Amino acid sequence: MPKKVAVLLSGCGVYDGAEIYESVLTLLRLDEKEVQYQCFAPKIPQMHVINHVTGEETPASQAEGPAARDVFTEAARVARGELQDLAEANPDDFDAVILPGGFGVAKNFSTFATEGSDCEVNADVKNFVQAFHKAGKPIGLMCIAPALTAKLVAPGALCTIGNDASIEGALISMGALHKTCPVDDIVVDTNNKLVTTPAYMLATRITEARAGIFKLVDKILEMA
Amino acid sequence: MPKKVAVLLSGCGVYDGAEIYESVLTLLRLDEKEVQYQCFAPKIPQMHVINHVTGEETPASQAEGPAARDVFTEAARVARGELQDLAEANPDDFDAVILPGGFGVAKNFSTFATEGSDCEVNADVKNFVQAFHKAGKPIGLMCIAPALTAKLVAPGALCTIGNDASIEGALISMGALHKTCPVDDIVVDTNNKLVTTPAYMLATRITEARAGIFKLVDKILEMA
Repeated sequence: MPKKVAVLLSGCGVYDGAEIYESVLTLLRLDEKEVQYQCFAPKIPQMHVINHVTGEETPASQAEGPAARDVFTEAARVARGELQDLAEANPDDFDAVILPGGFGVAKNFSTFATEGSDCEVNADVKNFVQAFHKAGKPIGLMCIAPALTAKLVAPGALCTIGNDASIEGALISMGALHKTCPVDDIVVDTNNKLVTTPAYMLATRITEARAGIFKLVDKILEMA
Repeated sequence: MPKKVAVLLSGCGVYDGAEIYESVLTLLRLDEKEVQYQCFAPKIPQMHVINHVTGEETPASQAEGPAARDVFTEAARVARGELQDLAEANPDDFDAVILPGGFGVAKNFSTFATEGSDCEVNADVKNFVQAFHKAGKPIGLMCIAPALTAKLVAPGALCTIGNDASIEGALISMGALHKTCPVDDIVVDTNNKLVTTPAYMLATRITEARAGIFKLVDKILEMA
């Protein structure tokens, strides 16, 4: 059976959704390795809408009702429309799961951006990823996503979030273990089959992000 | 002097803006080749907002005033905020220009989507690209962007739009020449220093698009 990987997208854009370069580089590497993938997103509202030049909330952030942005519809841009509802995803159909980063993980997939170590994680995201952990299947988290390691995978799991001391502190207080890691490398927790890389927590160029992300994907496929 | 390339983005998402994978693969190849780049977009409204799963207009498409989506703010997502106003761009600062595709080129950069061969092209986009042509600098167009070859570059210029007969017809009636081209290859008009590739006019996988886009970037850099 050919391997198949689930990729979870938290929107479209680093400051309020999925980091686009991390998402595309993940899909590129999977396709280079002839591995099938399926992107998923939850049908939930975006926390807000950020102007990616100024870093400020845009007027669109105040939109209500059907004009408000939601994670699924925006994530569909990154997936070129080939997106499925996470609530209907079956973990048994996949050999591994990967979460690109972007603040959507901390704002839409969880409340980490506002509540830090007291955060809650979206139930569908949590249940889906935990199913891979329970089944002994590999899990890849990049950029800010490893902040949720203790809740998504298991307390005591080892990961990297680059070298940001405050986020590292929150990550540890939630119960995960942390290892500093350069942008072009990965941290592997063999027992938990967890692979993490700093990506745009540290990257200043797309080729820097690529180096760590390609290693993450390759390691995930090796363990799958 | 190190080479520097301008990349023009028409939004964020294949159906109403810049095609994300084509844009990211362009930036990836430029960075792999150690070439500096700067992304630009015009500060103009998006024609509309498309739900990328259904292909239909979304309720956000009806938003007016500051909540309406504009090309610059959405394109900033693809550029991770490192975006400049096309109206203030100086072609003299760059050795080449590349336009990724996506329907934003036919909907925001021009009226090609609605008016076909009778279309008009945004003045800032047209003036910027034509400055490269006049200066004898290379121009790269991918996906649907070569539809505008006669207006952006010159009548009689040779390009490819893949193998779509109706778009090819409109392109020819506007004065360009067309050559059918497989997804993993490029068409080079040496006299006009124009390089084109079908990208997602034909691609069914990201690695297919990558093959042609990397060739396009490499050829552009060779000619710069």
